[in-house]
Amino acid sequence: MAGRGRLFGLGVGPGDPELITVKALRLLRAAPVVAYLVAKGKKGNAFGIIEGHLRDDHVLLPLVFPVTTESLPPPHSYEREIAAFYDEAAKEVSTHLDAGRDVAVICEGDPFFYGSFMYLHDRLAERYDTEVVPGVCSIVAGAAVLGTPLVYRNQSLLVLSGVLPEPELEMRLAQADAAAVMKLGANFEKVRRVVMKLGLAERALYIERATMANERTLPLAAVDPSSVPYFAMILVPGKRWQG
Amino acid sequence: MAGRGRLFGLGVGPGDPELITVKALRLLRAAPVVAYLVAKGKKGNAFGIIEGHLRDDHVLLPLVFPVTTESLPPPHSYEREIAAFYDEAAKEVSTHLDAGRDVAVICEGDPFFYGSFMYLHDRLAERYDTEVVPGVCSIVAGAAVLGTPLVYRNQSLLVLSGVLPEPELEMRLAQADAAAVMKLGANFEKVRRVVMKLGLAERALYIERATMANERTLPLAAVDPSSVPYFAMILVPGKRWQG
Repeated sequence: MAGRGRLFGLGVGPGDPELITVKALRLLRAAPVVAYLVAKGKKGNAFGIIEGHLRDDHVLLPLVFPVTTESLPPPHSYEREIAAFYDEAAKEVSTHLDAGRDVAVICEGDPFFYGSFMYLHDRLAERYDTEVVPGVCSIVAGAAVLGTPLVYRNQSLLVLSGVLPEPELEMRLAQADAAAVMKLGANFEKVRRVVMKLGLAERALYIERATMANERTLPLAAVDPSSVPYFAMILVPGKRWQG
Repeated sequence: MAGRGRLFGLGVGPGDPELITVKALRLLRAAPVVAYLVAKGKKGNAFGIIEGHLRDDHVLLPLVFPVTTESLPPPHSYEREIAAFYDEAAKEVSTHLDAGRDVAVICEGDPFFYGSFMYLHDRLAERYDTEVVPGVCSIVAGAAVLGTPLVYRNQSLLVLSGVLPEPELEMRLAQADAAAVMKLGANFEKVRRVVMKLGLAERALYIERATMANERTLPLAAVDPSSVPYFAMILVPGKRWQG
């Protein structure tokens, strides 16, 4: 791999620009190329987090998603279109790497925890020197903002996607000591229904965009489902241990 | 709360001193008192992480655990002794807070994710201004070091303590899309047995002290159970999604 650039996946944390690690900040500043996955017409959360740390001579490489919804009308297929997009994005990144330029891909939260960087990693890590810098993920950020310990002693923690079907959510949540349900958005009403049904409403907490400038917390019962963003979650902390 | 000091729970990350956040570092440097929970005769992982950032005039407040094992001979009770210890530790911290001095309690990983800080938080947060700064937790640090995405798309992640009884470990792990089993130590052999039985051995990865100076990774089958530290974990990453 001599002469080639290195690929960095940098976790930049949940939203507050100060929640980036010292290491990610150092590598970001040192890399000549900064790449980021972003929806069409958006600035991107990860980009917003690190914007203040960019150098004048940083080359920016936005990798713009062609689709933002998983349900497309036929003959389109989300799986096919997104795979083709990642192929193309990986090619754009590799052009810089082949030219000997390091590329820092910035990732909201942590790169390997539901981060889209994974799909670039899976296409490039075998061919290029790759380093992933872990980041503060949204779950612990949410618990910090809410001021609630997440898991005591030997409790288990279950992290779920709100996209799951209602029966599966119910079955899984029923067995959890503590839980975090992510990716709420349009799934909120369904998830809240399950939480209520399981008698978890008293322990459950709701938070949107933890540590971002437009962070919002409110009682679960008071949430208007039509207002819930994708980056919202419900936390069910473990029962307090009187240690 | 006028005139009183503020309580900070600072996540200092998994081990590499550079994996502390910019925010935790700033608050650590600004606090006159730095407190940390530590086993008798040890320096402590959290202390080792931030040692290089201490000021000459920092007041250090080690809070030394009286016991390190949960199984004590009668008439001793771990629950009772540890609760009395946390009561006393909270009192020591509050002495500084009452005198108007901010106290930064440093926590390896994240304060609310299996961190002992929780027990100080539960005793003090209602009486003092408290802020918790989330940190990079060991699970995502382990995935980063191992170079393996942890959860794809709508997979769920289950975090378990290795202390759990074997049948419970088996029942829970059997249902997980992806999993992390923490707190291995003397529990390693039992956990490995369950992982093998469930046919997860090919996906499972083993790592000790991720990102610390004495980090070690090795194939699960090659691990000598007598050598496994408490800060070791087995990760079972979610099946790769060909996105």
